[in-house]
Amino acid sequence: MRERPIQEKAAAWLYGRHAVEAALANPARRCQRLLALRETAAEAETLLRNARARPPRAGLETVERRALEKILPQGAVHQGLALAAEPLPAGDLDAILAAESPPGVPRIVVALDQVTDPHNVGAILRSAAAFGALAMIVPEHGAPSITGALAKAASGALEEVPLLRVVNLSRALEKLKQAGFWSLGLDEHAEQTIAELDLPERVTLVLGAEGSGLRRMTREHCDFLARLPTRSAMASLNVSNAAAVALYALTQRRTR
Amino acid sequence: MRERPIQEKAAAWLYGRHAVEAALANPARRCQRLLALRETAAEAETLLRNARARPPRAGLETVERRALEKILPQGAVHQGLALAAEPLPAGDLDAILAAESPPGVPRIVVALDQVTDPHNVGAILRSAAAFGALAMIVPEHGAPSITGALAKAASGALEEVPLLRVVNLSRALEKLKQAGFWSLGLDEHAEQTIAELDLPERVTLVLGAEGSGLRRMTREHCDFLARLPTRSAMASLNVSNAAAVALYALTQRRTR
Repeated sequence: MRERPIQEKAAAWLYGRHAVEAALANPARRCQRLLALRETAAEAETLLRNARARPPRAGLETVERRALEKILPQGAVHQGLALAAEPLPAGDLDAILAAESPPGVPRIVVALDQVTDPHNVGAILRSAAAFGALAMIVPEHGAPSITGALAKAASGALEEVPLLRVVNLSRALEKLKQAGFWSLGLDEHAEQTIAELDLPERVTLVLGAEGSGLRRMTREHCDFLARLPTRSAMASLNVSNAAAVALYALTQRRTR
Repeated sequence: MRERPIQEKAAAWLYGRHAVEAALANPARRCQRLLALRETAAEAETLLRNARARPPRAGLETVERRALEKILPQGAVHQGLALAAEPLPAGDLDAILAAESPPGVPRIVVALDQVTDPHNVGAILRSAAAFGALAMIVPEHGAPSITGALAKAASGALEEVPLLRVVNLSRALEKLKQAGFWSLGLDEHAEQTIAELDLPERVTLVLGAEGSGLRRMTREHCDFLARLPTRSAMASLNVSNAAAVALYALTQRRTR
């Protein structure tokens, strides 16, 4: 399923109930078009009435299913809703790190090294939002564009957690270190499990590609390496599942 | 309790490196055809030489990419390998429950209620294998067929964890209870988190569809309900991520 990037200059199509609803609720979004089917028009009208995003000038457009599906990638699970929205403004890591957190709230940043599947990146962003991560960092090269498929898998989290593209991931990890964030690389060959480590309060969770894992350069910028306590015969989890488990382990540790 | 074979009578096409390799390594598999591309033929020959499954009579067939892709679903990530294998024999829940486990090994069964996406079901099976679950149970209706997409997402776990289709999920939960397995339903509206509950040693982890959650009938057969400790604003995880986190929480509890 080929998709055009949606966060280059032009607006791109978001689809699916949660992704569209969250984008319309985000004051930082500028929307160009909102399409619904006859059977989802009432729902779309409600979303538009409550929108905090800049709404599309033409308001809601009700279209035939065929017209909607022609616009979206083949097989897109659109749930009768599609929104053309301009890219979000690029997030600023310094500002994010400088912001105060309420005490007791975990301070976690997620960094992805060469995770290329948009469904995985979207699902990890969703988990990052669910567990209260501050931001997610991906390299400019070796990460998928922000497509509708990514936004759909993120299920609204694209509006919640800043997704930052950086030129150099190692440099970003160093910058995070200067802000007190130690890098924890997930590595199935690590000796210790994530629960066994005595970790500092601020953590950058670094995840590599499934199969190949962390690249050497990235690994060398990690202060800790840990694995998940899986059985050795079937050690590997899907990368988004591994991310969710690691985020749970990190947040549980903090709230204990 | 009747359990139908998990695949229809005819062979189904499995694809992708891990799925094909694991199926060929499984003595319970009968293979009908093995296809590879020129560039993956050597790898396929090695898999065939080491096969513990009944190999295809014709041995390895090297085909053009176009021929391979014509056989498989559109967009299938086949990695140059496809295997037509007969369905696995239906698993027997009684035998699984009667088998001895080494002490300290968690005894967990996963039950899915109306999780219909084959990628999710496959990813959950993969996590079930990674965390050592004994079996996974799905209802005969309201669960996907065992397709290549499910097997690909399971990444070999289809050969590791018995996937049982039952006529009546509630009755299966009752049967598990008689064998000492208490039912724990995951429910984002539950009061307690999974880590707060004092759970018995044997647990059936019950997961419902994303969005709608557990059906009333299924919920009524649960002895415990628990949620994951996510932020309320973005409570929901992808169902496969929720399953992975719950399995981690259950196994960690046991090994502490």
